[in-house]
Amino acid sequence: MSEHKKIVLALGGNALGNTLPEQLKAAQVTAKAIVDLVDDGHQVVVVHGNGPQVGIINNAMTEYSQHNNSFTVPLSVCVAMSQAYIGYDIQNALREEFLNRGEEPPAMASLVTQVRVDPEDPAFTAPSKPIGNFMAKDEALKEAGERGWIVKEDAGRGYRRVVASPKPQEIIELKAIRAMADSGHLVICCGGGGIPVISQGKHLAGVPAVIDKDLSASLLAQSMEADMLLILTAVEKVAVHFGKPDQKGLDTITIKEAEKYIADGEFAPGSMLPKVQAGIKFAESGRGRTALITHLQKAREALKGNTGTRIIKE
Amino acid sequence: MSEHKKIVLALGGNALGNTLPEQLKAAQVTAKAIVDLVDDGHQVVVVHGNGPQVGIINNAMTEYSQHNNSFTVPLSVCVAMSQAYIGYDIQNALREEFLNRGEEPPAMASLVTQVRVDPEDPAFTAPSKPIGNFMAKDEALKEAGERGWIVKEDAGRGYRRVVASPKPQEIIELKAIRAMADSGHLVICCGGGGIPVISQGKHLAGVPAVIDKDLSASLLAQSMEADMLLILTAVEKVAVHFGKPDQKGLDTITIKEAEKYIADGEFAPGSMLPKVQAGIKFAESGRGRTALITHLQKAREALKGNTGTRIIKE
Repeated sequence: MSEHKKIVLALGGNALGNTLPEQLKAAQVTAKAIVDLVDDGHQVVVVHGNGPQVGIINNAMTEYSQHNNSFTVPLSVCVAMSQAYIGYDIQNALREEFLNRGEEPPAMASLVTQVRVDPEDPAFTAPSKPIGNFMAKDEALKEAGERGWIVKEDAGRGYRRVVASPKPQEIIELKAIRAMADSGHLVICCGGGGIPVISQGKHLAGVPAVIDKDLSASLLAQSMEADMLLILTAVEKVAVHFGKPDQKGLDTITIKEAEKYIADGEFAPGSMLPKVQAGIKFAESGRGRTALITHLQKAREALKGNTGTRIIKE
Repeated sequence: MSEHKKIVLALGGNALGNTLPEQLKAAQVTAKAIVDLVDDGHQVVVVHGNGPQVGIINNAMTEYSQHNNSFTVPLSVCVAMSQAYIGYDIQNALREEFLNRGEEPPAMASLVTQVRVDPEDPAFTAPSKPIGNFMAKDEALKEAGERGWIVKEDAGRGYRRVVASPKPQEIIELKAIRAMADSGHLVICCGGGGIPVISQGKHLAGVPAVIDKDLSASLLAQSMEADMLLILTAVEKVAVHFGKPDQKGLDTITIKEAEKYIADGEFAPGSMLPKVQAGIKFAESGRGRTALITHLQKAREALKGNTGTRIIKE
């Protein structure tokens, strides 16, 4: 468990907060977890979500365009903006954490990243990805009526707007990400799952969607031939019978077992389900590839084999 | 004139347009100019402005915060967002231009870049940098009253909001930019002059300002030990007696001559003045360093020595 790994690390919403002050504070805690791994000798590439942020940016831009007709900003461009909005804080928090430890920060970079999706992806006709703030049911229905949003109840935590979430097919900036990571840079990329684009001949066109960041992190980990996909979230282990008296945290499961749990409906869509699916995809992509899901602040312990849920090929 | 140069290239407003559709179209023309230089064997790092874009983003965010109190986005974060907003289009246009020429695009990356400024910079008490859209005088005065903006007449083209524009002191992400450029990557960075930050112990704090992108490009060129600072704008040559019957385009001028023209008030503040100042700073930083100012679409010709204005040490 002690060898140096090439790790793609996916940060969930709790690593970032919902507002800028929350984000600044959350980024400090997140930076500690990431620098721990770098100090342990691992090569780390950071992927982060953008659910609340991209919704807020999109709201602000949409409202502004309503009285400034020449100015509209599509959701794909809002995803781009959210990458800088969040990357800026993460890279600063990382820099500060290295300095606090008396270490010279490595070269760091937050990259604007595009991810190609399939225009025929069925997700475009069945929006499922929650973005923006949580709303009460009444407010959600009002917004849906006024703005043409589709809203859905999200994992028991309230209502949110949902948008299409097509599957990631290709990381456009892979060459740069890979070269930088291999040179020992600490790279932040594929923010919010990446800017969703479709291929139109030689042109890449943005599409109104938000890609699941865990699935993009999984694709990046596969494309980079990483040893591990590390998904950091708000729970220490993936659980079955979640929220019931017989809830049980999982230690190591095979792809087959994970698929059985999915078939049994053990994992909530938009919450644990995409994480487990992302983990399966990575684990099945090559021998020795492990997906590890755990709490943000348990990352180092989990890497040592002391906690977290591992998904392995067999 | 034919040897391969390490060039930091600064793109002016005409390279980007004022709206997203304009930006998409302008980026295509800009990409041709940049790929020409890459095809000629030069190493190119791209810096771009963000004047109109950051103003619009800041307006949208400020208006949204007025009825969403928990959500305010400082100008520095708007600069970050503008870097992704613009970098996304530039890197796509570059990719497409390489493909149109039947060439494999090099690794490309738009980097979120911070630039440290001095908190004691006198610019903080004398806002001078125009951002956002041009306005008629009446509208400008109304906005100034309602929003607490400072507005100024901008080079005869109308009124604009002005913000503090402190001098760039240090490119925080220099290590990453330099390593990537030296590996043959095509890097887009220091967008909008960079996110302005001040050093507070180990922490970097954003400040409400917009750094002049030509000065940041000059600092980057100095820090990277580039051979050339190439400033691309809307005119083929820097002129004296600009707009008068005896207007005269300049070919090659020494730092001393450039400083004399500045003292004579030949160059408009917020327009040609910062470009010439940026050029002087680069030219005086080392032997053999040339600043070249020309029209976006004359870049290749100017590199060959056929047009443009060169600023040289002596």
